[in-house]
Amino acid sequence: MLNAEILAIGSELLTPHRTDTNSLWLTERLNSVGIAVKLKTVVGDDEARMEESLRDALRRSDIIISTGGLGPTEDDITRKVFARVTGCTLTMDYDVLAEIRQRITSRGYEMTPNNERQALIPRGAMVLPNPNGTAPGIRMEQDGKLIVLLPGPPRENQPMFDDYVMPLLEKRSRGIRIATRVLKAAGIGESQLDDKIAPIYKQYSNPTTTILFTEAGVEIHLTATAESTARAEELVEELADLLEEKLENYVYSTRGESLEEVIGQRLLLRRYTIATAESCTGGLIAQRITEVPGASEYFVGSVVSYTNEMKTRLLGVEAELIEEHGAVSGIVAEAMAQGIKERTGATIGVSVTGLAGPGGGTDAVPVGTVYIGLADDVGVSNKRLVLPGDRYLIRWRASTIALEMVRRRYLL
Amino acid sequence: MLNAEILAIGSELLTPHRTDTNSLWLTERLNSVGIAVKLKTVVGDDEARMEESLRDALRRSDIIISTGGLGPTEDDITRKVFARVTGCTLTMDYDVLAEIRQRITSRGYEMTPNNERQALIPRGAMVLPNPNGTAPGIRMEQDGKLIVLLPGPPRENQPMFDDYVMPLLEKRSRGIRIATRVLKAAGIGESQLDDKIAPIYKQYSNPTTTILFTEAGVEIHLTATAESTARAEELVEELADLLEEKLENYVYSTRGESLEEVIGQRLLLRRYTIATAESCTGGLIAQRITEVPGASEYFVGSVVSYTNEMKTRLLGVEAELIEEHGAVSGIVAEAMAQGIKERTGATIGVSVTGLAGPGGGTDAVPVGTVYIGLADDVGVSNKRLVLPGDRYLIRWRASTIALEMVRRRYLL
Repeated sequence: MLNAEILAIGSELLTPHRTDTNSLWLTERLNSVGIAVKLKTVVGDDEARMEESLRDALRRSDIIISTGGLGPTEDDITRKVFARVTGCTLTMDYDVLAEIRQRITSRGYEMTPNNERQALIPRGAMVLPNPNGTAPGIRMEQDGKLIVLLPGPPRENQPMFDDYVMPLLEKRSRGIRIATRVLKAAGIGESQLDDKIAPIYKQYSNPTTTILFTEAGVEIHLTATAESTARAEELVEELADLLEEKLENYVYSTRGESLEEVIGQRLLLRRYTIATAESCTGGLIAQRITEVPGASEYFVGSVVSYTNEMKTRLLGVEAELIEEHGAVSGIVAEAMAQGIKERTGATIGVSVTGLAGPGGGTDAVPVGTVYIGLADDVGVSNKRLVLPGDRYLIRWRASTIALEMVRRRYLL
Repeated sequence: MLNAEILAIGSELLTPHRTDTNSLWLTERLNSVGIAVKLKTVVGDDEARMEESLRDALRRSDIIISTGGLGPTEDDITRKVFARVTGCTLTMDYDVLAEIRQRITSRGYEMTPNNERQALIPRGAMVLPNPNGTAPGIRMEQDGKLIVLLPGPPRENQPMFDDYVMPLLEKRSRGIRIATRVLKAAGIGESQLDDKIAPIYKQYSNPTTTILFTEAGVEIHLTATAESTARAEELVEELADLLEEKLENYVYSTRGESLEEVIGQRLLLRRYTIATAESCTGGLIAQRITEVPGASEYFVGSVVSYTNEMKTRLLGVEAELIEEHGAVSGIVAEAMAQGIKERTGATIGVSVTGLAGPGGGTDAVPVGTVYIGLADDVGVSNKRLVLPGDRYLIRWRASTIALEMVRRRYLL
């Protein structure tokens, strides 16, 4: 089995405010082709330390992957240190330079001498194109070792890694294959879910099962290893089917799709359209739905009515209703859902009104109280929740539960 | 200045699902007494790698702090490796053994031979009591170096560190104190910013300067060390002032506030209210504004008009205008800003219409084209941008630039 080592570069990763998260994603990708990560190092923008770390890594690991330090500023020294350690000369790559220039000027910025440094490439190394930023990646093979330098931002390094590194790793790691499956579930607590499925997955040592709690619900990660991809897939499929059957409607996705994507597919199929009326979530549900490309096929619009007056002006909720029941109430949630449905002409209106805090809670309406309304041609309904967590989590959870309500109502 | 190095021990920290977070808290504590963290390593429960990492750490750093691997199971080998590297014998500490026994039996469990291993202490080391778990910590000084082994769980290692390590560190780092400042800037590229300020910050070795690119703009991190907190503050203040002056209006925050918070403070001060009309950002701007607690004081609402029809129905944009100029145009952006201002009665209306892709681009309107509109009592204006990146980044950048336009327009 091949060993990999990850080097996260950047002084900011040695402060109390930031931590390396790139290595998690990279580890998953490496594991998927049967490569184990044996060590991770975080080093600052310090030439001597970085050089030492890189030399140590080259001595002990088959594959070395670094992230960060490829930017245009003076403290981005990864290229330089890397060239010194591998004994390569840095040379200007004029194709890369032209691309960087084009990128920068198209954004209305001026090209500076600093930007030119990003086109310095160690001789003999392969340039990894970066469509999402100016810093290209670098890939090199030396003495049977594979060295990959990636930029820091995930948006830049992830597609780069998948396009230009994974194919190579798959070739190198011949023999062991891994198959994974992620089941996503919503509307059920982590321990409740575990109670349901533990008797099943405990009977299997391959695939292994890991249960994770995320902002968008619970994820069940299954990983199977075998001598062939087909066999690994078979193993993972068998357990996934058993778990899905046991969990019934709680599972919304078995192929990694997000809740937003699942809802989108379902609405498209039924030719339904949807609109949201949001108070405490402040546009979060609309934003999540529209993160999916092509959402305009089924999402028509949203109103964020952050004050009582706006609930009346923009959604037609009667002022007396708010007066009598309070803005955070089931009746107002229903009126908001009905209002957005009527004003947009959408098939489905979803609404959220609640108290995300930190201030404003009372005994009757504590922080975390959220009402979700749902209106369609059949009728209108609401659901009350008291959600734990801080402002951020309350807003996220409310938006997830609203989306989950939509999914449940329009199960095929 | 003393250098510290942190070793996070545990194979689970080398999986895709878990990452070391102990080091963030430890870094903050170390920094507070003027000790810099120069390197962090994550190593699994692998004797050879751990031994190598510990030897390397002892060679290059004054202070070595490890977390994890002190538990009772076979794979908790930190004690053993540590004893070998420092040349100390592990001996049974009968006081510690008695405490462990008492702890375990009082919880109704049976003492196992594995538990006894936790009472093995390197000769000459100091035992750090652990009131919150069975694994005691270990502290040792050798050749002027300080080595501290802590258990993994934060609720065990944090009180232990504060009680038995911090007092020693304060003594060792006598005098040296650290002050930090974060300047945040928007509307300027990373390298353009660096060109402007490098001639200034390069003259200073104290404070040190690090520049970071984030989703919300550029951050400049300054760190000063001095014999007293007051002097460190003075040093960091001096450079911060110079940089801020040089960068003029690009700097939106000098105390770590987010762009959303800065805008909120400014609107509150002027008693202005704001509303957004969003197309391609799908509610993202509203969502960002309302992430700030108390946003209801100045944010009234938003309309997400994701189709042409909704721009007309919800915002009163004339259909002919869209027909003639296209939905992604400056004129429509202005009409949307004007429309949301009128419909909500807010002081300021901000709008975004654009094409986030991935599909739908043409030669005239390529993916990434975004128009931002701004309407207030003075008048209405728009700005055209062609943003690079994928759907996610285009939406994020558009929302940041819209917020930045608001900030610029209402500078004090």
